Amino acid sequence: MSAPDLPDHAVVDLLGLVALGELLAFERMAVDARLAPDLRRRAALGEMAAAEIGNYRRLADRLAALGVLPDDAMAPYVGALQAYHDSTEPRDWAEAVTKAYVGDAIADDFIREIATALAEPDRQLVLDVLHDSSYADFAVAEIRAAVEADPRVADRLSMWARRLVGEALSQAGRVATAERGAFTALIAQGGQVDVQGLFRRLTEAHSRRLAEAGLNN
Amino acid sequence: MSAPDLPDHAVVDLLGLVALGELLAFERMAVDARLAPDLRRRAALGEMAAAEIGNYRRLADRLAALGVLPDDAMAPYVGALQAYHDSTEPRDWAEAVTKAYVGDAIADDFIREIATALAEPDRQLVLDVLHDSSYADFAVAEIRAAVEADPRVADRLSMWARRLVGEALSQAGRVATAERGAFTALIAQGGQVDVQGLFRRLTEAHSRRLAEAGLNN
Repeated sequence: MSAPDLPDHAVVDLLGLVALGELLAFERMAVDARLAPDLRRRAALGEMAAAEIGNYRRLADRLAALGVLPDDAMAPYVGALQAYHDSTEPRDWAEAVTKAYVGDAIADDFIREIATALAEPDRQLVLDVLHDSSYADFAVAEIRAAVEADPRVADRLSMWARRLVGEALSQAGRVATAERGAFTALIAQGGQVDVQGLFRRLTEAHSRRLAEAGLNN
Repeated sequence: MSAPDLPDHAVVDLLGLVALGELLAFERMAVDARLAPDLRRRAALGEMAAAEIGNYRRLADRLAALGVLPDDAMAPYVGALQAYHDSTEPRDWAEAVTKAYVGDAIADDFIREIATALAEPDRQLVLDVLHDSSYADFAVAEIRAAVEADPRVADRLSMWARRLVGEALSQAGRVATAERGAFTALIAQGGQVDVQGLFRRLTEAHSRRLAEAGLNN
């Protein structure tokens, strides 16, 4: 069921982490949707949120099929993921879409890393929960519009994006050093990957995306 | 496109009302999910919420196909629906699931009334957004469990349900007397229906459902 050098409990840990990420992303986006300036945009962020809970369901079903209660698999990560969201509450619509954009993208990069450590069917399942790029297009358009309306917004959102990635990596570090060891198993896989390498790839991709949205790194 | 005696603008009004109901129900359930005692229940209410935004999308697409901006069709109802939700913020999980149960059911009853006034394809579209009964089963089980754990909860939830239906009917009355006239057109349809009759049917069905969940009317 798992890749040759990834123990079963590590597979459960990784699926649990991705599942909880989806569940909390759903909630926060749904809450943040209330910051939207009109009903159309409010619904758009709501639909981004709803896609996450659909993904959560698939992961929870897979965990159940593996004989694990989804809650048990997610429990070790509640502290870190909740802390990330609590420390990055957007104050307005531009911050909300920037968070959805940055958060989704980092989650996707991270999920791709996780997928390399998994065997089928878990590899494909995890790849299936990657975000629809149409949501990123929506977010980028909203960020560009906000900056166009007031160029000073670019600096504020750039700083906000830096804070988002900083908090995300800080909590990722907390998860990585947690006793469960799933990350260690993932990161040490094949002896080719280290935490620094993983974080470097994540931050490099983040910088490219900021530029795409017209923000500075 | 509309029933013989229902003008087009009334069709748009009714679809707009149902669409906004779905959008706001999505948001509030997603927010209320955070009151859940564990992740499994939190996800369950989240999935109920996500079903609403899927329905919203279908209604918004239909409005767009009718040449109307969904935001314009929903705008007349924002005040009343927002007031309903603002005045009925659940304080704990039992209140949250009771609100989802009572609110969904009243919405369904109301949608069925609306459907009788519409011609195809709008009639079927509106009937399609009726809630999956599995969600009601979940809510009833949660309410019964809360009452079993502490029988005094029954009184509190019964009072809460009365308040929910009272606020819902009060806001429905506000909508019904609004200048747009869609309700008047609906209620006067065929000369057989009056506001009192509509409200009576809604409250009777509500009483039956409360009994089913072990609550008093």
